Amino acid sequence: MLHQIIDEAYVCHIAFTAGGETHCIPTSHWRKDDYLYIHGSNGSRLIKALSGGNEASVAITLLDGLVLAKSAFSHTMNYRSAVIYGQFEVVQGKTQKLEALDVFMDKIAEGRKSEVRPGNAREVNATTLLRIPLTEAAVKVSQSGPSDKEEDVGLAVWAGVLPLKMTAMPPVAADYTADVAIPAYVKTWTE
Amino acid sequence: MLHQIIDEAYVCHIAFTAGGETHCIPTSHWRKDDYLYIHGSNGSRLIKALSGGNEASVAITLLDGLVLAKSAFSHTMNYRSAVIYGQFEVVQGKTQKLEALDVFMDKIAEGRKSEVRPGNAREVNATTLLRIPLTEAAVKVSQSGPSDKEEDVGLAVWAGVLPLKMTAMPPVAADYTADVAIPAYVKTWTE
Repeated sequence: MLHQIIDEAYVCHIAFTAGGETHCIPTSHWRKDDYLYIHGSNGSRLIKALSGGNEASVAITLLDGLVLAKSAFSHTMNYRSAVIYGQFEVVQGKTQKLEALDVFMDKIAEGRKSEVRPGNAREVNATTLLRIPLTEAAVKVSQSGPSDKEEDVGLAVWAGVLPLKMTAMPPVAADYTADVAIPAYVKTWTE
Repeated sequence: MLHQIIDEAYVCHIAFTAGGETHCIPTSHWRKDDYLYIHGSNGSRLIKALSGGNEASVAITLLDGLVLAKSAFSHTMNYRSAVIYGQFEVVQGKTQKLEALDVFMDKIAEGRKSEVRPGNAREVNATTLLRIPLTEAAVKVSQSGPSDKEEDVGLAVWAGVLPLKMTAMPPVAADYTADVAIPAYVKTWTE
């Protein structure tokens, strides 16, 4: 379930302390084997703080619905969440970086890595990849209908789930795409 | 835009330090005037840590799409995010707590607060409400098509946006709802 949550979500939130302040920063992520990867410009605050080996906590949450019970205090939400604890390490070596970035591109759009103009030396050098092992992680899943107390079950109030789902909407081509063949991952995006 | 982001999202992530560890915890939230509110059981770790006035950072992120450029390193995402810094304070007084919870219920389902069985003294007492002022907040919005370098624009690669949207799916009534009239917010949920 941990891998599934990480793979389904595009964005995680990372908590860390830097300069005496606690930060909560969203960033895109992906997974390769038993590591969660992030990337960023060498100079960004997030990358600089986490490259130093600061303790970090990474949270990923997929909201699946609102759960409406018959009593006010029994309302809840359905979700799948993972919280990872540990330290990030810098991914060294051009080959290792490019291999990991290929996995990210496959998550975004399968096969696209062989279509796009690949990163040049300057671009690869200006980008830092970090990864955190998935060894210390807490997964929480809430996937059920409402639960009301015995004495509330008979009340004349609607109870049930209002589901929510992250949904793919129709692709929007850039003006400058022109007469390019539409790749499979764009054609099937909303399926 | 700050209010809009907070109001549209159901879940925030809160970073805080407790017992020497940095945590990133997801929780539901709502807004009343210029405060972001959260709630929880008196005994929960999140509530206990934040009630002590620890420095906290609250992040809310709405992902709007994947932005596919013609070069690998120009890919990005469209999103709207807010990060709030400060300290939470405990909402005191039964009336104040119930007024704030009514705003939460209206966010979930407008008008439902007058249908459900309201919280009793025991339930209200067992729940802590916290709020953080929206005085120190950073909003970031990225809402555009891909941007490729001059030399990449002519490449024969599809470029554009694959939009994503949190979408309401058909309501699922609980077995024990029985012959209850379906409220407007359930009927119109998917509209």
